[in-house]
Amino acid sequence: MSKKKSGRPIGKSDYNAELEQLQVELNQVARWLQQTGKRLLVLIEGRDTAGKGGVISAVADALPPRVCKTVALSKPSERESTQWYFQRYVPYLPSAGEIVLFDRSWYNRAGVEAVMGYCTPAQTALFLRQVPVFEKLLVDDGILLLKYWLTVDQALQEERFAERLTDPLKRWKLSPVDLQARDKYEAYGKARDRMLKVTHKPYAPWTLVNFNDQRRGRLTLVRHLLDQLPDTALPEAQIEFPMLSPPLKREHFTGPLKPIKSF
Amino acid sequence: MSKKKSGRPIGKSDYNAELEQLQVELNQVARWLQQTGKRLLVLIEGRDTAGKGGVISAVADALPPRVCKTVALSKPSERESTQWYFQRYVPYLPSAGEIVLFDRSWYNRAGVEAVMGYCTPAQTALFLRQVPVFEKLLVDDGILLLKYWLTVDQALQEERFAERLTDPLKRWKLSPVDLQARDKYEAYGKARDRMLKVTHKPYAPWTLVNFNDQRRGRLTLVRHLLDQLPDTALPEAQIEFPMLSPPLKREHFTGPLKPIKSF
Amino acid sequence: MSKKKSGRPIGKSDYNAELEQLQVELNQVARWLQQTGKRLLVLIEGRDTAGKGGVISAVADALPPRVCKTVALSKPSERESTQWYFQRYVPYLPSAGEIVLFDRSWYNRAGVEAVMGYCTPAQTALFLRQVPVFEKLLVDDGILLLKYWLTVDQALQEERFAERLTDPLKRWKLSPVDLQARDKYEAYGKARDRMLKVTHKPYAPWTLVNFNDQRRGRLTLVRHLLDQLPDTALPEAQIEFPMLSPPLKREHFTGPLKPIKSF
Amino acid sequence: MSKKKSGRPIGKSDYNAELEQLQVELNQVARWLQQTGKRLLVLIEGRDTAGKGGVISAVADALPPRVCKTVALSKPSERESTQWYFQRYVPYLPSAGEIVLFDRSWYNRAGVEAVMGYCTPAQTALFLRQVPVFEKLLVDDGILLLKYWLTVDQALQEERFAERLTDPLKRWKLSPVDLQARDKYEAYGKARDRMLKVTHKPYAPWTLVNFNDQRRGRLTLVRHLLDQLPDTALPEAQIEFPMLSPPLKREHFTGPLKPIKSF
Repeated sequence: MSKKKSGRPIGKSDYNAELEQLQVELNQVARWLQQTGKRLLVLIEGRDTAGKGGVISAVADALPPRVCKTVALSKPSERESTQWYFQRYVPYLPSAGEIVLFDRSWYNRAGVEAVMGYCTPAQTALFLRQVPVFEKLLVDDGILLLKYWLTVDQALQEERFAERLTDPLKRWKLSPVDLQARDKYEAYGKARDRMLKVTHKPYAPWTLVNFNDQRRGRLTLVRHLLDQLPDTALPEAQIEFPMLSPPLKREHFTGPLKPIKSF
Repeated sequence: MSKKKSGRPIGKSDYNAELEQLQVELNQVARWLQQTGKRLLVLIEGRDTAGKGGVISAVADALPPRVCKTVALSKPSERESTQWYFQRYVPYLPSAGEIVLFDRSWYNRAGVEAVMGYCTPAQTALFLRQVPVFEKLLVDDGILLLKYWLTVDQALQEERFAERLTDPLKRWKLSPVDLQARDKYEAYGKARDRMLKVTHKPYAPWTLVNFNDQRRGRLTLVRHLLDQLPDTALPEAQIEFPMLSPPLKREHFTGPLKPIKSF
Repeated sequence: MSKKKSGRPIGKSDYNAELEQLQVELNQVARWLQQTGKRLLVLIEGRDTAGKGGVISAVADALPPRVCKTVALSKPSERESTQWYFQRYVPYLPSAGEIVLFDRSWYNRAGVEAVMGYCTPAQTALFLRQVPVFEKLLVDDGILLLKYWLTVDQALQEERFAERLTDPLKRWKLSPVDLQARDKYEAYGKARDRMLKVTHKPYAPWTLVNFNDQRRGRLTLVRHLLDQLPDTALPEAQIEFPMLSPPLKREHFTGPLKPIKSF
Repeated sequence: MSKKKSGRPIGKSDYNAELEQLQVELNQVARWLQQTGKRLLVLIEGRDTAGKGGVISAVADALPPRVCKTVALSKPSERESTQWYFQRYVPYLPSAGEIVLFDRSWYNRAGVEAVMGYCTPAQTALFLRQVPVFEKLLVDDGILLLKYWLTVDQALQEERFAERLTDPLKRWKLSPVDLQARDKYEAYGKARDRMLKVTHKPYAPWTLVNFNDQRRGRLTLVRHLLDQLPDTALPEAQIEFPMLSPPLKREHFTGPLKPIKSF
């Protein structure tokens, strides 16, 4: 694959060409997972506006939905908030042959919840003690676990917030919490560093990816993800596709209903 | 909105401009649903390769995930197949403020299942008796129900199958059932016409949309969908967005982990 | 089966002997359901303290849990309360070979909810229009549907409330709603009669059972239930049960843990 | 509480009196859990026919169903069997104020699955490494965890199997696996001892209870369970229960439906 010079913005068509190449490889991964029964769990964390949703779509859109699942939990119900912290995440762990992408994850407790005061310091501390143990259970069970944290400078974050405010198609992405979080940029950074310090383990390492340029960030993350997996090229099943004998049919409607006038 | 001359292919940039306009209106619908608590249920049916997934993405990608949900059920488990036929669909019906888009729906029983022999003729007949009654229960409960059937001529269907076979990014869309269904084009049409005849009701009408040109089809369907709803323009909540005082921060890492080298 | 003279209290040992006989027949029903794949749905409604839970236990305790399931839904969540009224009940409908007993049911909307003002009169009216249609869908799908309403005079109801108040093992059965409902005995009766009038259908009839004497009530209800089903006696699978060669083993513990001292 | 002389069979009325006393205390525990939000998890393991179901009923029948939940999972689906082993159990862990009783549990993997060859030795070994870590996560999260193993000698086990074979009300309790397991009494004992050796931890101890006499076993287990909890007596909410002014009403039916003739 030809590398574009790092640091310069990457143009749309170059981006699309590179992404397509990566998506072809992702399809090989999907086939490999299905044939071997392996399970892949990917946590996507990072700052607001970094581009978590975008990179998840770049992966998921190219893959069979029965293979690749995205999980974005909303806030816990009152009942859930009294349960073992990991309880509401566990049902979404991958089964054989599946990729599961978490758009945010259990790390909320060391990030937004800690910074915004949605949990107590004791709860964050307990979480930070439990999470390496919990992840080791999963990895020892054979789950392939990859954890990504997307970085972005504050000036770019502000730009993207402003865009969400003015673009009617992005407005819904702007939540009240986002706005409260704007001037806590530094506190989020500190919370991240504390979290990295105790949860970056040989069996469950973090990878930081610069998303100041979102296109470049996506290509970087997906390339890295692919490089963590073994050579997964497996032959596709051959499909018989004999020519149909003409004439081919056109739509024909025996009842009164017809297609409406096209745009 | 300027109309493009019907019948001619619509260019990519024209398509994007028109779609964006529609997506802005869809966002107004989402706001209206949230504020009024109304529920919108949209069934997307149609031939293989017609473009069901594409039009669903065109709608869902522009909307908040907590508002707009897509449902694509896989085949029933053995246990489910002994239950009341509608039982496995009911849990996905919309709650207040939600749009639910079904990618295929309970109409499978009068379409693919009937044509491919996955159910008995008696089961299809029972379904066709029950479905108008079932849908009336939902509509009388206040659910807004829209049903679309996407049409496509066989020559175009063949083209799209061939593309799925050769394009590594579309290959996974090609299922063995698709291939068996290729030469049953006419049977599918007949099954559709029988289904339309008994399930096109004043309270739950079908709309047929020509998807020979998928871009045009998407614009047509979304425009139609928007036109079924009342004038939904509601004022957005005003959001305070005060300037942050400089200097804005850049990412800074206190630990050894740094972002990996960008692509 | 010998009949005890109606009207006089039935003694405990007579009751147990009769019940055991009925439970043997219930086991035949369970076997018949499993072998034929039929589905049985039983709604148990009636006044507070009538004895709904008791008769359900009398049936369920004698049957394999994989065959006989009890459903007692708590009050709907806020989200559920905006959904189609039947939506939260539908997931519990029986699969092949199952008996499902509802301890209260969708009829709440015409009973407690209507009397206590937990729903609007319009919601009750809509419910009363929908319920015969909904039940007909189930019955036409082949579900065997039985509906029981347990009657009790107010003096006995008061006695039982008083017992719940003083018996520490029954205290938890006494809810604040029960107490508010005490002086609404007549309103509950009227609500019941209105409900019977529009929901007692040939395909889904109600059966009223007098539970002033709870033992007699239970025997009456179960006898009636069994009489609604066809002759279900099917031969049991023969089981090989060869003698084990002695000596038989006693518990032996290789580690330090032993059973604790018995009571 | 008066103790009956250990070793001699305990009569039915003595048993009932003692059990009732214990059930009153269990109700205090339920109230304490509700008021403090604590969570209690009880695993009931032991040999076939030991009496797991009976002791669970003795506890659960006396308690509000919203407080006390019983979990008896059937065998995993094909999909579940590829997941993290604990995944299907985790959703049933207790929320605030709840008692959850597992009728068998994750320990299946070291018991029946290991002895009958339903899993590989490597899977059992992995389980035995993971289970203390998993349970410590729960206990550190504040869950009160009690683990009981019910013992029974083989002669009594044989007696109970024979009773299940001949008693039409117990016949359904006799599964083919039970019969295959009959002559593996010793292997089950060894599997238990291996399991105790590695999973009897200070934070999650096992308690063995002799169930050769089931009545005595039940009393012993429940007494022990109560003794593990702090003094939980909390005052009950006072309930106003004013006399209703006479005359009290009798059932009266305005429609044609009347209670059927009583048994």
